[in-house]
Amino acid sequence: MKAKKPQIPLIWHADTNKAVSEDLSEPNRAVVDEFARLIKAGARETVLKAVRRMPPPSMVSLFVHLPLKRARKLTSWLDQPELRIIAELNPSFRAALLDDVAVQRLIDVLDGFEPEEAADALDDLPDEVAEQVLPRLKERETIEALRGYGEESAGSIMSRKFVAVPVDWTIGQVTADIRANAEAIEKLYAVNVVDAEQRPVGYLRLRDLLLAPKETPVEQIMQTDFVAVGPETDQEEVARFADRHELSVVPVVDRDGRLIGRITPKQLRRVLREEAEEDLNLMSGLPADSRPDQPIRRIIRGRIPWLLAGLAGASLSAAVVGAFEEQLAKAAILASFIPIVMSMAGNAGIQAATVAVQGLSSGTVTFADLGWRLGKELVAAVANGAISASVLMGMVLLATQFIEVQQPIVLALTAGLSLLSVIVVAVIVGASIPILLERLGIDPAMATGVFITTGNDIISVALFFLLMMLFYL
Amino acid sequence: MKAKKPQIPLIWHADTNKAVSEDLSEPNRAVVDEFARLIKAGARETVLKAVRRMPPPSMVSLFVHLPLKRARKLTSWLDQPELRIIAELNPSFRAALLDDVAVQRLIDVLDGFEPEEAADALDDLPDEVAEQVLPRLKERETIEALRGYGEESAGSIMSRKFVAVPVDWTIGQVTADIRANAEAIEKLYAVNVVDAEQRPVGYLRLRDLLLAPKETPVEQIMQTDFVAVGPETDQEEVARFADRHELSVVPVVDRDGRLIGRITPKQLRRVLREEAEEDLNLMSGLPADSRPDQPIRRIIRGRIPWLLAGLAGASLSAAVVGAFEEQLAKAAILASFIPIVMSMAGNAGIQAATVAVQGLSSGTVTFADLGWRLGKELVAAVANGAISASVLMGMVLLATQFIEVQQPIVLALTAGLSLLSVIVVAVIVGASIPILLERLGIDPAMATGVFITTGNDIISVALFFLLMMLFYL
Repeated sequence: MKAKKPQIPLIWHADTNKAVSEDLSEPNRAVVDEFARLIKAGARETVLKAVRRMPPPSMVSLFVHLPLKRARKLTSWLDQPELRIIAELNPSFRAALLDDVAVQRLIDVLDGFEPEEAADALDDLPDEVAEQVLPRLKERETIEALRGYGEESAGSIMSRKFVAVPVDWTIGQVTADIRANAEAIEKLYAVNVVDAEQRPVGYLRLRDLLLAPKETPVEQIMQTDFVAVGPETDQEEVARFADRHELSVVPVVDRDGRLIGRITPKQLRRVLREEAEEDLNLMSGLPADSRPDQPIRRIIRGRIPWLLAGLAGASLSAAVVGAFEEQLAKAAILASFIPIVMSMAGNAGIQAATVAVQGLSSGTVTFADLGWRLGKELVAAVANGAISASVLMGMVLLATQFIEVQQPIVLALTAGLSLLSVIVVAVIVGASIPILLERLGIDPAMATGVFITTGNDIISVALFFLLMMLFYL
Repeated sequence: MKAKKPQIPLIWHADTNKAVSEDLSEPNRAVVDEFARLIKAGARETVLKAVRRMPPPSMVSLFVHLPLKRARKLTSWLDQPELRIIAELNPSFRAALLDDVAVQRLIDVLDGFEPEEAADALDDLPDEVAEQVLPRLKERETIEALRGYGEESAGSIMSRKFVAVPVDWTIGQVTADIRANAEAIEKLYAVNVVDAEQRPVGYLRLRDLLLAPKETPVEQIMQTDFVAVGPETDQEEVARFADRHELSVVPVVDRDGRLIGRITPKQLRRVLREEAEEDLNLMSGLPADSRPDQPIRRIIRGRIPWLLAGLAGASLSAAVVGAFEEQLAKAAILASFIPIVMSMAGNAGIQAATVAVQGLSSGTVTFADLGWRLGKELVAAVANGAISASVLMGMVLLATQFIEVQQPIVLALTAGLSLLSVIVVAVIVGASIPILLERLGIDPAMATGVFITTGNDIISVALFFLLMMLFYL
């Protein structure tokens, strides 16, 4: 047989920032700009003709690189089956694309998705829109079942397609069954083995399936170290479970022990991305599911609670400052130190808190370590506080060459001492609060947001004025 | 054949917080506490006997749940092959375990790892330790080659084990080859097809391999939509590439197009975790590779640059306040507003910046959208600013019932106006800086850390005093 010319593979090299061979997966800026221009100009037919010739990865890439407005217009032009690719987009981006789309259009789009993708996309839409759309979807029942498991549960992200064979079959029967269903099987990761009640008892490795003689009983070569999660398991726990057991696919089993689905590698990666986004949002005083390009009223509603909580905290700091009005009237220069102690407390506190939050999520930090960790943080805080305090004292002494103040040396020493104390306290607060919250069952990512910053503001301002009263005024 | 009693599978149910059957993968607190006690007491033989009977996932779990100090002691007791499980731990946790271990011990540990795991573990150790250890490792050459690709590159995280067959083989030959190498093949995800120069020309799906008759030429049934990354591709880009092309395993190809490795699903998930940790660290003013339980001097060295940068910024805010000393002497009450404007600017700015940073990384936000995004942020900022300002005006009017100030209504109105302006400016700064940084090729996660907070501090204090001078004083 004469070998036909092999197709040149698509290879991505980072340093050239484009693929070595024809790289359709990364349209270059010129191509994207041309598409953007054509879409803006309304050249619907030209654009659609070009898009339909693109392989799906290139379409995804085009979508991601177009300005959102153009991508939305393109979405409105596409028909099935091209619309299918929207399922492949990052969830936030997909939600942004679908936000403004009319209900009928949404139904067309979602009917092209796999049920678990549709369920996921519905979760990202405003509730009132999801409620309108869901009853009119083709796969409504499956989607409702998936949504019934609750957001971010294993059940809601699992695929209901998997390959399972009875434990009393032979390898020949398994192969014949796979052959008969070859059309329906999209990705084959492993073959589950189940008993008469659909309860998993093991799995077949593809390697063994390939190598075993036809007449071998499944039971003889199956692996029995089968592990699975329940459908109500939180998705974050599922990802940890996959790591712990080195699974690329995680089987899902219901309360009665019956196999009901599997979580694919792609979904596992999506979970990791979503959980990271959530942590970051919480730490920044945003709702967990906050996204760019939400409608303005959702932006406002999502942010205002934290702003008002911050305002309440800040007014306590203001009250502390107000309590020292008399001292300030005597030495207005003291007000200059308020920004310094507040911002240093904030920065030092957030550093310590972030390390603690990440340690908790990676398992490096546990409640049992609290004392030992605080000891280390304390030493580091004293060192960094001392360095910062020395710099501040130098700056104060320098500044007092130009500004007239009473007792410049005492002022510098007291300011330095204040900064040192403020940093130490802020670090201890930042390092311990997340661990205590975790112990109480509260997501520690919440702690580093408005709470720690505000708390440290109040403490730092109070500490500063107290020390000034003691030593300077 | 009479079916033997199937083994009860291990199933994880989140709500009961333990597995339904004997759950060795999640030792309960009592078991862990007992281990901790025995380790503390130095009962080496008892502990080792128990540990050796545990399946690997349970050992991993035991390590993760033990206090770090006890886990370290246990590490020092273990021998090969039990030490192998340390490779399975989360990288930060693993690094924490290995930090204090003696060099000879480290060599024993790393010799039990896969080369790419050892290379990864070496990257997490201090350079001086890694340099001592590397030359004495068994797999030194492979590890050096992997490390040669640079940290966080595809080359450094790839496994060099993969299955590849010549394009001119038949399926029968492929099966025979896999059978001959069955021992060496750990996980079989797909079979790569290569030409005479080891260049990939396609791949065989396991399903087709299973179903095709022995005499079928590989070339006839192979898939030719082969994609790969270069070894120098950044790991973050690799993860995006895997999503875009729906790969669970990513092949790696060198400059000459030869297949040199593959990146496994487990490594892909590890990349996602690492990248999320890095972003969070940068946003909190920590070095990207910052970890809990680093030695104290590394904690100090990692945090002090940002603290000093923050101090420099804060002293500018202090200078601004100092410039208004005369006004403060007239109305010391104004100092009370410094914590309020500073902390509100900080919170509002970080909210906007976090949304922008996440949008950039998910592709929802691009430079092309800058104008449109800023418009939306502006509207939301005006709304949230107005709400916060109203609350503040109410509080000021209430407070002035108890504190004597001049022109309480003018003070309240000016304070409200200041807060509104400060929030609007902080949001615009927070929303635009990350996008501009990305455009300049700088990691936008850096922006939300000390930079935006400090910048907003200075602007907010200046804005507040200027407005007070204009309208109140």
